[in-house]
Amino acid sequence: MVDKVNLAAKLAAVDDPWQPKIVAELNDAYVKVVKFDGEFVWHHHDEEDELFWVVSGRMRMQFRDGDAVLGPGELIVVPRGVEHCPLAETDDTHVVLIEPKTTLNTGNVRNERTVDELERI
Amino acid sequence: MVDKVNLAAKLAAVDDPWQPKIVAELNDAYVKVVKFDGEFVWHHHDEEDELFWVVSGRMRMQFRDGDAVLGPGELIVVPRGVEHCPLAETDDTHVVLIEPKTTLNTGNVRNERTVDELERI
Repeated sequence: MVDKVNLAAKLAAVDDPWQPKIVAELNDAYVKVVKFDGEFVWHHHDEEDELFWVVSGRMRMQFRDGDAVLGPGELIVVPRGVEHCPLAETDDTHVVLIEPKTTLNTGNVRNERTVDELERI
Repeated sequence: MVDKVNLAAKLAAVDDPWQPKIVAELNDAYVKVVKFDGEFVWHHHDEEDELFWVVSGRMRMQFRDGDAVLGPGELIVVPRGVEHCPLAETDDTHVVLIEPKTTLNTGNVRNERTVDELERI
């Protein structure tokens, strides 16, 4: 038998913002939960499309040509190569990411928010 | 700029149960919405892992060695090769599927519920 994943329970176990945690995997992708806090960093991914699904709060996905603002039950796919910068508009902005296992959170950028080793929770 | 997807709005445009509709794509996968009604069909997928994420209602995922019951905010990944049969436990069981583009809804089975041509909404 296969175990289900309760996303609220997983998110309750996340302490630090901008630290994605793996909660499931399928095919070549990971499902991750992440808490947002303020603005992330402008970056892109050369090879990977990324899915962001807002579970709670409100996320602004900034693009160079305009923003998309998402609430719970809304998702957006950022295609490879497209520069973007996620931003939390509320304190409780919790997001699920689905993206290839090869995806580095900061994409083409390397800074203090880069997470090389992803933890599973 | 990239458009977001509002899942409730997409689901409101779905009439028939067990007819998955494509709402987004990323990498080699589609994101689909589907309304459940009663029991589906026992099947498996030889090559594809499938993600089921309950948006509303309650879904029972039947496996040969036990069931998992999921409500909103819960997801399950059915690994390739594992026989399963989804079942709606409520009238409003709405689910998001994320799976490779090659995935046939009835897997190794072909019957009146098989959908060969997926519609985008």
